Amino acid sequence: MNTFKILVATDIHLGYLEKDPVRGNDTFVTFNEILDHAQKNEVDFVLLGGDLFHDNKPSRKTVHSCLESLRKYCMGDRPVQFEILSDQAVNFHYSKFPWVNYQDENLNISIPVFSIHGNHDDPTGADALCALDILSCAGLLNHFGRSTSVEKIDISPILLRKGRTKIALYGLGAIPDERLYRMFVNKQVTMLRPKEDEDSWFNLFVIHQNRSKHGATNYIPEQFLDDFINLVVWGHEHECKIAPFQNEQQRFYISQPGSSVVTSLSPGEAVKKHIGLLHVKGKKMKMEKIALETVRTFHIEDVVLADHPDLFNPDNPNVTQAIQAFCMEKVELMLDTAERERLGNPRQPEKPIIRLRVDYAGGFEPFSVHRFSQKYMHRVANPKDIIHFFRHREQKEKKGIDLNFGKLVSRPAEGMTLRVEDLVKQYFQTAEKKVQLSLLTERGMGEAVQEFVDKEEKDAIEELVKFQLEKTQRFLKERRTDAEEEKIDEEVMFC
Amino acid sequence: MNTFKILVATDIHLGYLEKDPVRGNDTFVTFNEILDHAQKNEVDFVLLGGDLFHDNKPSRKTVHSCLESLRKYCMGDRPVQFEILSDQAVNFHYSKFPWVNYQDENLNISIPVFSIHGNHDDPTGADALCALDILSCAGLLNHFGRSTSVEKIDISPILLRKGRTKIALYGLGAIPDERLYRMFVNKQVTMLRPKEDEDSWFNLFVIHQNRSKHGATNYIPEQFLDDFINLVVWGHEHECKIAPFQNEQQRFYISQPGSSVVTSLSPGEAVKKHIGLLHVKGKKMKMEKIALETVRTFHIEDVVLADHPDLFNPDNPNVTQAIQAFCMEKVELMLDTAERERLGNPRQPEKPIIRLRVDYAGGFEPFSVHRFSQKYMHRVANPKDIIHFFRHREQKEKKGIDLNFGKLVSRPAEGMTLRVEDLVKQYFQTAEKKVQLSLLTERGMGEAVQEFVDKEEKDAIEELVKFQLEKTQRFLKERRTDAEEEKIDEEVMFC
Repeated sequence: MNTFKILVATDIHLGYLEKDPVRGNDTFVTFNEILDHAQKNEVDFVLLGGDLFHDNKPSRKTVHSCLESLRKYCMGDRPVQFEILSDQAVNFHYSKFPWVNYQDENLNISIPVFSIHGNHDDPTGADALCALDILSCAGLLNHFGRSTSVEKIDISPILLRKGRTKIALYGLGAIPDERLYRMFVNKQVTMLRPKEDEDSWFNLFVIHQNRSKHGATNYIPEQFLDDFINLVVWGHEHECKIAPFQNEQQRFYISQPGSSVVTSLSPGEAVKKHIGLLHVKGKKMKMEKIALETVRTFHIEDVVLADHPDLFNPDNPNVTQAIQAFCMEKVELMLDTAERERLGNPRQPEKPIIRLRVDYAGGFEPFSVHRFSQKYMHRVANPKDIIHFFRHREQKEKKGIDLNFGKLVSRPAEGMTLRVEDLVKQYFQTAEKKVQLSLLTERGMGEAVQEFVDKEEKDAIEELVKFQLEKTQRFLKERRTDAEEEKIDEEVMFC
Repeated sequence: MNTFKILVATDIHLGYLEKDPVRGNDTFVTFNEILDHAQKNEVDFVLLGGDLFHDNKPSRKTVHSCLESLRKYCMGDRPVQFEILSDQAVNFHYSKFPWVNYQDENLNISIPVFSIHGNHDDPTGADALCALDILSCAGLLNHFGRSTSVEKIDISPILLRKGRTKIALYGLGAIPDERLYRMFVNKQVTMLRPKEDEDSWFNLFVIHQNRSKHGATNYIPEQFLDDFINLVVWGHEHECKIAPFQNEQQRFYISQPGSSVVTSLSPGEAVKKHIGLLHVKGKKMKMEKIALETVRTFHIEDVVLADHPDLFNPDNPNVTQAIQAFCMEKVELMLDTAERERLGNPRQPEKPIIRLRVDYAGGFEPFSVHRFSQKYMHRVANPKDIIHFFRHREQKEKKGIDLNFGKLVSRPAEGMTLRVEDLVKQYFQTAEKKVQLSLLTERGMGEAVQEFVDKEEKDAIEELVKFQLEKTQRFLKERRTDAEEEKIDEEVMFC
């Protein structure tokens, strides 16, 4: 009675490829599986990390199917056993029904679903509504974590209590990464704390942003997040890394549930898909992984033709046939593996997604993908894009803008810009190597500075450097309190 | 406890002109007024005749707003006081939740809404869903009267009982008029009757089709409908003729509620908009008219310039200015009238819709509508189309295809076609004039025949004639039972 059981999932992407005759139904099947797990595990609530819908304006079928699932699985007589202590009019201020659905006397909700919006289903248009608002207006979902201002974001938590356990649930729906990055740097993002017993809460934060770096400011460095947080549920990234891992510099743990559907044919998506059953008791937590059984299997492999000089000689007139035969053999093996790995769930779709990436650098020619595809029309779910030819893979990885102070100096920049560069250099020279924040490596910082200088936002540069210095100082100070560190370690028990 | 109170409305067209900065909100305001009337009058249910939505795929805002209204007005603790005796799995067979919403134990419904779909919000796409299905899946509306076959339509009534009153509620969602016309003629439409106590039911039929004739088979003649019906609620036609009027040949009454929003600037739409409060006790009914107070006022007038030779002389070089001044005077008068007729409801929009149709036949020139519109930008809701110039109005009304047997005969038609013509002629010559069905006047029948012949659907011709002959015979037979006729008269009490 003191333990919250929370089903954690994200990036369900309802409606993805809905018109595909083979894969069209995948997202709906898995959404039902997820809700079925929630029901069978008698969770207190479901927490979604955004992108429940793939399209900003999902089709009628998708909305209909989603409503059907929510009504089927989330309504019922089982009583909800936690209470809400915060002001719901604040938590759901943009809703037409600004209270949690299970407390609505006209709705019999057994599993409340809380969700932030993702970048796929974010609010748009003059009315600033998003697809989740349809569900919330129908009383079948609680859309939270929506900030309406571009000036200032105050994240006011939903305060939940079950017995002696208290959770402060923070949410922040997707915001363009660069804007949010800037707002963090400019200290425009504030996470409000409960006034009383500040330390008695388990602080759970759900966010939907780039976690991996896609350019200098096109992601949210983990270190930007407040360190009073206990667990971050990080949506948007599709690779399943649901077992909580600790941020090296901050106190908190991060769980990245990953998507429940394969939307890009990249290695991250081939990692087995899971959702989580998060147990929170007092300030201790446990994340139980639940393997999803209805996700279409996906296998990806790379072949570098130049790595097989024994097999392929570009001068051999029959080399293309040899390559094709080799690829077919590979695909057959992948199909075998896929078949073996099927989980026996009758709802798991039969045909796997197969991708073979062929690096044909070294004078080889790609063969006809079309004819190759035809052979697998009835055996794989993605016949058209089984094979992906590319060249010089290794060179692509070297991309990135190197820090070029000379270039910066040669610009008609004002004195201040130079001073900022000095600050940056000084910062990295003096900071201890072992505590250098992975957040902003020298190169990363350089890129950030360059971007800001390009945009002539000089105040922002100062802010960035100041923010970073303060953060480092705080971090160094906290690093010393090893006792506390250990305490946190204790709090996490993985399954 | 034996009287059903039913709020009857149709063609609410939610989302009509939703992007118009002036009129965009009109449909939502009036929908709320309608549901407010339902609530205040403590009706047993709301019956809608189709086109709740203007667009087949209504915008997110429109769906959101509709859900909001339904959840706000139709949920609550007031108990629903009628029961359903029919097999709901049949009545709602295409629904994911094939039962009436107020009997769902997870929903606290105080006012069930029953609706057929109209031609604007009919099922489309591979999934054959319509916008109403979103509402019904959310548990906020009962979509009924949907036929899924194009071969045969069996209309199975929802059987309702409140105390001693029993209603058989028949519905037929919009179907292309020509197809439905053909199906009626081919006897592919069947209205199923309750097995027991067939005569003890008040038979209420809601339909959404052309009632006025738009071409030979592009409407549904009232006479096609079964004569055991007591009241037809006829949607689709926007002119409010809600007071039930009796079909001259059949037993039943028709109520045409009309739309609750002006969607075309025609005289029919200028008739004051009403909804109905239908009382049904045993087999007696009473239709109480409720004037809608939030509908934007609409005034339309015609001016025939040639009717004013004293005022306008086409040879006068200043005649255009004179016409413009005259039109302005007219518009000012219409604005005065509109202002006087405002009903004092604070939610009624201020600016009226004004249309002046100017017949400029007789050598006149139209003036610049653009400049005229500018003057009324801030005073009328439709500045861009206040003035509509047209010519030779009287000639347009003469259109229509005259019966031309010669033309038919001269076609390379088979012998049978001629025989059918003979049948038609014979039918109209022998039928008593006073019972000639307005349904198919000689000309109307001719058109119908011609259309069928054109399409070489000879079986259909025979069917049409047979259908009509049988209908007439039945009608003549029933006409004699005057006693029954009088009984029905008694059943109707207008307010």
